[in-house]
Amino acid sequence: MSRQLPLNLRLKDGSSFSNFLTGPNREALERLRAAVVTTATRDKASEPMLYLWGAEGSGKTHLLQAACRLAQELGIAPMYVPLADVVELTPSLLEGVEIEPLVCLDDVERIAGRTEWETALFSLVERLRAAGGMLAIGAIAPPDRLGLRLPDLVSRFAWGAVYALQLLDDIQKLEAVRLRARHRGFDMPEDVARYILSRYPRDLPSLFGLLDRIDQASLTEQRRVTIPFLRRLEELDRENAETA
Amino acid sequence: MSRQLPLNLRLKDGSSFSNFLTGPNREALERLRAAVVTTATRDKASEPMLYLWGAEGSGKTHLLQAACRLAQELGIAPMYVPLADVVELTPSLLEGVEIEPLVCLDDVERIAGRTEWETALFSLVERLRAAGGMLAIGAIAPPDRLGLRLPDLVSRFAWGAVYALQLLDDIQKLEAVRLRARHRGFDMPEDVARYILSRYPRDLPSLFGLLDRIDQASLTEQRRVTIPFLRRLEELDRENAETA
Repeated sequence: MSRQLPLNLRLKDGSSFSNFLTGPNREALERLRAAVVTTATRDKASEPMLYLWGAEGSGKTHLLQAACRLAQELGIAPMYVPLADVVELTPSLLEGVEIEPLVCLDDVERIAGRTEWETALFSLVERLRAAGGMLAIGAIAPPDRLGLRLPDLVSRFAWGAVYALQLLDDIQKLEAVRLRARHRGFDMPEDVARYILSRYPRDLPSLFGLLDRIDQASLTEQRRVTIPFLRRLEELDRENAETA
Repeated sequence: MSRQLPLNLRLKDGSSFSNFLTGPNREALERLRAAVVTTATRDKASEPMLYLWGAEGSGKTHLLQAACRLAQELGIAPMYVPLADVVELTPSLLEGVEIEPLVCLDDVERIAGRTEWETALFSLVERLRAAGGMLAIGAIAPPDRLGLRLPDLVSRFAWGAVYALQLLDDIQKLEAVRLRARHRGFDMPEDVARYILSRYPRDLPSLFGLLDRIDQASLTEQRRVTIPFLRRLEELDRENAETA
């Protein structure tokens, strides 16, 4: 079963519905969540196709992984497929995937224009529909602007609800970082969050990456997260960069 | 709002339905999970009272926290109250708790015989029922063997489903430890799990505590978890104990 390898469910620690700062994206979250609950508690998906698109950092991956996490908690086996990571492999990876009642395909723009992949995806959509499963999609653009070659695939992707995810503004990002910290069990005072937003790249993937780093450092050193603590971390990083 | 303080939801990292090794306790898990889903997705709890009892290490706390975690994911605010931690405080803590649609009371044996607490709990049960909420209980004994003074409280506790949780046998414990490790993102080879079971206290709370320790050490040192790695950890602990 070597095909399982790259599709293995490796969820990022902590991407869940409860630590997603909804901001302007509440409706998308609620629709996706309700669909997962129905898929898990009934025999057949109520919402066979749900399409989320938006710029990087708008929350596509977070929501898809939250859907998988919730599905797991509800006792069904979800499949999360980050196409960016597997596009150089063979599309036959997708064979048999429809045995899972929930399949989440992320980075779908990565297969646009690749006929073999497009055909494989189209076939998966059909098989999933026949099996009564649910497909959730994450992509950088709406179905008709992905650059797909197969018109039938475009129309399938647009079959269900299509949500455009919005980026958070700076105040919401600050809330999102603090919410995430709280869920990881440490408190991030507002001044620290502001300091971070003023000095670091403000896209959420970078900010959450920084949070990982802070979390680990504060755990190892058993220190409270303050601005002096962050400054020391920066110094350490600079020293490491110089000696590297 | 000082009353929020001791009741603050501090879930142990990783206690979820998907990393609970069900073994003989599948029915209890499924009933609790289904009840949480209904409570979260409808206006009224389908199962206003669910009582779990069993020896320490049988999974009461794990299941109650998993219920809270799932409730959070489903967008409702759960309340987890570890009575062991708050019994020395005032029962007025429980006032107003019924505004949350799911309340989980753990270690309920700790308030047995304390009239003030028993009265407060009885009143909470009535208020929650009126509000359409759900109460999940964890205790070391069934309702009629808790040593409660209020006969009405005994009968309320026995109103709904009462599950006796069973301890896992050694093979299941080994599976539980490996499942938990997998969910934390590291692989624990079978020989390592066996080694641990042969040398450490075999109750699950201790085993999961050890897992925390291993997880942190392997993260800090970026090492794979092997028997030599564990031996080194033991040596370190011994040295620390001697110098302390």
